[in-house]
Amino acid sequence: MTIESIRVYRDLLDGNRRWAEATRALLRARGWTLVNMIGAPGSGKTALLEALARALPDRRTWAVIEGDCATTRDAERLRAAGLTASQILTGDGCHLTAATVHQALCDLPFAPRTLVLVENVGNLVCPASCDLGEDAKIAVLSVTEGEDKPLKYPILFRVARAVVLSKTDLLPHLRFSLDRCRAALRQVNAAAPVFELSAKTGAGVPAFADWLCAAPPAGT
Amino acid sequence: MTIESIRVYRDLLDGNRRWAEATRALLRARGWTLVNMIGAPGSGKTALLEALARALPDRRTWAVIEGDCATTRDAERLRAAGLTASQILTGDGCHLTAATVHQALCDLPFAPRTLVLVENVGNLVCPASCDLGEDAKIAVLSVTEGEDKPLKYPILFRVARAVVLSKTDLLPHLRFSLDRCRAALRQVNAAAPVFELSAKTGAGVPAFADWLCAAPPAGT
Repeated sequence: MTIESIRVYRDLLDGNRRWAEATRALLRARGWTLVNMIGAPGSGKTALLEALARALPDRRTWAVIEGDCATTRDAERLRAAGLTASQILTGDGCHLTAATVHQALCDLPFAPRTLVLVENVGNLVCPASCDLGEDAKIAVLSVTEGEDKPLKYPILFRVARAVVLSKTDLLPHLRFSLDRCRAALRQVNAAAPVFELSAKTGAGVPAFADWLCAAPPAGT
Repeated sequence: MTIESIRVYRDLLDGNRRWAEATRALLRARGWTLVNMIGAPGSGKTALLEALARALPDRRTWAVIEGDCATTRDAERLRAAGLTASQILTGDGCHLTAATVHQALCDLPFAPRTLVLVENVGNLVCPASCDLGEDAKIAVLSVTEGEDKPLKYPILFRVARAVVLSKTDLLPHLRFSLDRCRAALRQVNAAAPVFELSAKTGAGVPAFADWLCAAPPAGT
């Protein structure tokens, strides 16, 4: 890698940082909260949002920004569940960027104290290092993925303000120890609360919904 | 993005391409075959390699190159299963690069007609666009991830020479239709064979092992 390439890399980061700062200012001005949900493909992020649509009605105004490489399927699923959902298509992009999320935020209808949940592209690596100007990153890990993922993808689990262990209805059919997974998580993150839940049965969803509702808006 | 940034991006791609070409030459010289396994975190790639260690013994000389962001756990699991396994740690890198895989290949002991399986970093996006000089990319999709993944991550599924549907032992507990998943795959890839298997029970593993054994070495 040349000196030139290092300079450009900083340019690109600077560009993203400026959009992230613009988003932080927008959130403060509107009194909104932005939560960035990050998990592997198929970890159950969209199903969790559908479950939240059943658990959160009328408790707080909220909207979803969906990130996918291709297809608008997830936004369509969420609109069918009664949610306001925007879709960002990244093509071969492996994570959402601050610029596109900022634009999607600007296009959302205004209501005070809105909670905006971003469903990032399914990926445990790249989204973890990208600042969207969000108030919190949340890691979603399905129990089918194995107990060791916090150790194997430490960058995400280190910065996560909360960790969702999804698909717990499948635990009886898996060799997965919640205790070993929590111990792995604690090696990289001592503080993040852990929410064990099943979007399918609804078990554990209200506790996570309570935590989201209590999340303060930016700037308060 | 500036003109400068475009030039550097091409430099980086050129650098990877040169290493990939060096790997193709190495494979031809040694008569080796290189297969690049790509799947999401927790899709069961390592468990599949362990199952292959039980299904492939003495049928073909083979080795594994493991890619992970952090920890050497997977290589340790594979060595415990009796396999020759190297580990590449990528840190915050979201996929293996041709340079590191080439170095790992050079360090493997020589035996004619060796089959080298690369387990890439768990990620459905970034590894799909990176040329390692491999003979084939294979997509590994666990049935817990949902039927629609071929449509949502089309770049990988379009280039895959074969698709493994893993964890089929969990099908009775999931809302997952093999027919709908195959139909989604056929929209982006009409030709790739599909191997439905369970590393846990061993069902379907021999058919995939047969396909791997029949894969011709590079240059023949």
